[in-house]
Amino acid sequence: MKRLLVANRGEIAVRIIRAARDLGIATVAVHSKADADALHTRLADAAVEIGPSPASKSYLVVDAILAAAKDSGADAVHPGYGFLSERAGFAAAVAGAGLTFVGPDASVIEKMGDKVAAREIARAAGVPTVPGTPGGVAGVDEALAAAEDVGYPVMLKAAAGGGGRGIRVVDDADALRTAFGQASQEAAKAFGDGTMYLERFVTHARHVEVQVLGDGSDAMHLLDRECSLQRRRQKMVEEAVAPGVSGDLRTRMTDASVALCREVGYRSAGTVEYLVDDDTGEFFFIEMNTRIQVEHPTTELVTGIDLVAEQLRIAAGEPLRFAQDDVVGRGHAIEFRVCAEDPANNFMPAPGDLGRVTLPAGPWVRCDTWAEPDGKVPPFYDSLLAKVIVWGADREEALRRSRRALAEFSVAGVPTTAGLFTELLDEEWFRAADFHTATLERWLADRGEST
Amino acid sequence: MKRLLVANRGEIAVRIIRAARDLGIATVAVHSKADADALHTRLADAAVEIGPSPASKSYLVVDAILAAAKDSGADAVHPGYGFLSERAGFAAAVAGAGLTFVGPDASVIEKMGDKVAAREIARAAGVPTVPGTPGGVAGVDEALAAAEDVGYPVMLKAAAGGGGRGIRVVDDADALRTAFGQASQEAAKAFGDGTMYLERFVTHARHVEVQVLGDGSDAMHLLDRECSLQRRRQKMVEEAVAPGVSGDLRTRMTDASVALCREVGYRSAGTVEYLVDDDTGEFFFIEMNTRIQVEHPTTELVTGIDLVAEQLRIAAGEPLRFAQDDVVGRGHAIEFRVCAEDPANNFMPAPGDLGRVTLPAGPWVRCDTWAEPDGKVPPFYDSLLAKVIVWGADREEALRRSRRALAEFSVAGVPTTAGLFTELLDEEWFRAADFHTATLERWLADRGEST
Repeated sequence: MKRLLVANRGEIAVRIIRAARDLGIATVAVHSKADADALHTRLADAAVEIGPSPASKSYLVVDAILAAAKDSGADAVHPGYGFLSERAGFAAAVAGAGLTFVGPDASVIEKMGDKVAAREIARAAGVPTVPGTPGGVAGVDEALAAAEDVGYPVMLKAAAGGGGRGIRVVDDADALRTAFGQASQEAAKAFGDGTMYLERFVTHARHVEVQVLGDGSDAMHLLDRECSLQRRRQKMVEEAVAPGVSGDLRTRMTDASVALCREVGYRSAGTVEYLVDDDTGEFFFIEMNTRIQVEHPTTELVTGIDLVAEQLRIAAGEPLRFAQDDVVGRGHAIEFRVCAEDPANNFMPAPGDLGRVTLPAGPWVRCDTWAEPDGKVPPFYDSLLAKVIVWGADREEALRRSRRALAEFSVAGVPTTAGLFTELLDEEWFRAADFHTATLERWLADRGEST
Repeated sequence: MKRLLVANRGEIAVRIIRAARDLGIATVAVHSKADADALHTRLADAAVEIGPSPASKSYLVVDAILAAAKDSGADAVHPGYGFLSERAGFAAAVAGAGLTFVGPDASVIEKMGDKVAAREIARAAGVPTVPGTPGGVAGVDEALAAAEDVGYPVMLKAAAGGGGRGIRVVDDADALRTAFGQASQEAAKAFGDGTMYLERFVTHARHVEVQVLGDGSDAMHLLDRECSLQRRRQKMVEEAVAPGVSGDLRTRMTDASVALCREVGYRSAGTVEYLVDDDTGEFFFIEMNTRIQVEHPTTELVTGIDLVAEQLRIAAGEPLRFAQDDVVGRGHAIEFRVCAEDPANNFMPAPGDLGRVTLPAGPWVRCDTWAEPDGKVPPFYDSLLAKVIVWGADREEALRRSRRALAEFSVAGVPTTAGLFTELLDEEWFRAADFHTATLERWLADRGEST
């Protein structure tokens, strides 16, 4: 690999350019019109404008990216996260053009992108999935019998539904009896199909994920991350390693993740996401992300391993450079996603012109960002402004440093979510890591913030 | 400790404020007129102007600093490095005013500041010192006999001299016979005293130092640093741990350093400096610095221990929080001291107005600095602009990241030494860690740079 095209923008493009540079690989940025003067555009060794500002006309245009690769002499493409990163067709097109795709094979992306197929693969690898009926149930009696097996509380879901719509949680057989007919009728009305299926509802769930690396013939894990603090399924704060996970649970989760990678001959960095039932200590496969994750720096700070560099090495054909025993977690890392959004106004994205930008710095504070003084937050893309990532010898130290780092963060011109995190650090439940996937939204609602 | 006055400026004042903040300690900055808008002044919780711009009228005025502490309600004083940090009188005055001095006792500073006393303490602790005559020799015959014991090559030094003046290196008895009378006469002329003494001359010397922590009753080490790359006795590049030091030598040096700390009941962070003879593997005590060192971040990145925070804890009366076995070095760190100096013009300090400032960032790059866009480099103080500190899983990775980090560093308005380090990274001898204390000056001279 001599010349890498980075098919992304923002902080992850900057991050990838730096990793490539560390390995002596030249870089080509692609950019939309709006990003002509962006940091990733200027930082790369070469830059190609690939289209107008909306991502649909630039960052998402496969042909434009392949043409840029050809014109600039790139021999490899890194998709970053978002955009085209999990489109099997893009991975296939890159390979078809004779270039190296920095990520797993198109067929693996495709399988893992199909939720049903992914769950089947997980089961085949012995990875637990959320207990539930394999498909629709014929009626209330079948539902009642199935619920006994699944265990209460159960979620009643419309087979034809999606995005959380039409879901009801019932605590016992009586409630199920009452809800079933009504839910089925509503589903029939909403989706044209009244078929319902059941899934265990986890009351106190944590979102925990395992970072993996595979080279196609072997696989390993790089410990786990806690990502329960979410708003509308968007992670806002992540930690490595997960504070609520016992050593035994960690072993079972990481073993399962490696087994899953081996099952599909996984090649590249990836993340296996789980729901952890805090009441029972069970864990259930949610999905696998076949790309670098926004929160990957927390794992990097704890393991000392550069995940993007390893992606590049694996894509270039190198085998895994580490044995599992080489991976030793040291200390604790926390990432705060600072977005150009207005928490007081329903987290409305707030594009605009930046004035003074002061980024946090100093010992054990890393800030991955594209933001610069007098820069612009364009209205076309996601609102992530900076990731403030803090390491401490233990979680206590990381929390204290987080407060300092967030206090140093300031940008003029747009509202950000940085202040919200400072308030979060005041909360005893956060400091005690006593939270679940629903906690952050409840906290925001209690404060009068719209969630 | 509730409120800490930071009796310093520049990057180290910023560093200390951050450590205090991590521990929940409020901070008071003191500043000269020139530093009224400096980063450390603005970053602290409170700031007191203590005098005109020259350090002799502000940062070095003990009474002004004590008055600022009293007025601001500070209960402790951190001296940083340079300025008053190794003046026993200042430590005594701080203690006399009922405040906590963040550093060792005045009596320890005084003893270690006296080179002769420090060597005697080192010998008493079993720490090797450079072989030489205990004092002056009576004449050439006594010199010849002593040289046999000391071992050639030897340095002939004027007892009344200093700062390297009047030193001659002789390789054998014949040369000593020839040089002695002449050197003695020159010394008599220059210093009014012709007394000469002898010391072993180490041809291939490395400057290696051991970081120590003591709490008054116990002491420990935090591994070592390589600091041989110097110009006019000013360190320019430092690494942790020292690449040229074998495990056995490391054990002997760190053991010796801990023994020295125990000998004086050392309390605080400190550094024991050694000359390592690369030909014989011997090491010799040079001196002990009783303060935080400019290059301390390299040790921090390798050990994960916040040295300034430990200084504060120890000063507040806490015992050492670590056992020696807790100190584990991970990876490799390199620090580059970027100065506002013109390498093409005899490294002339270059004060002036800064324009755009781009600091290196991203994974495993730390930049300790006070420099900001549109800031000023005042002409009154030392020219250190920023410390670029880079960590890698091994020295190779650290070197590659160093290149990236230095390439990202840029300031407009003043010349800096950053470009010189990029050229240094091209040198095979640097990459191979094949250098000694004289190497950097020779390299600069060979390049036509004045040293």
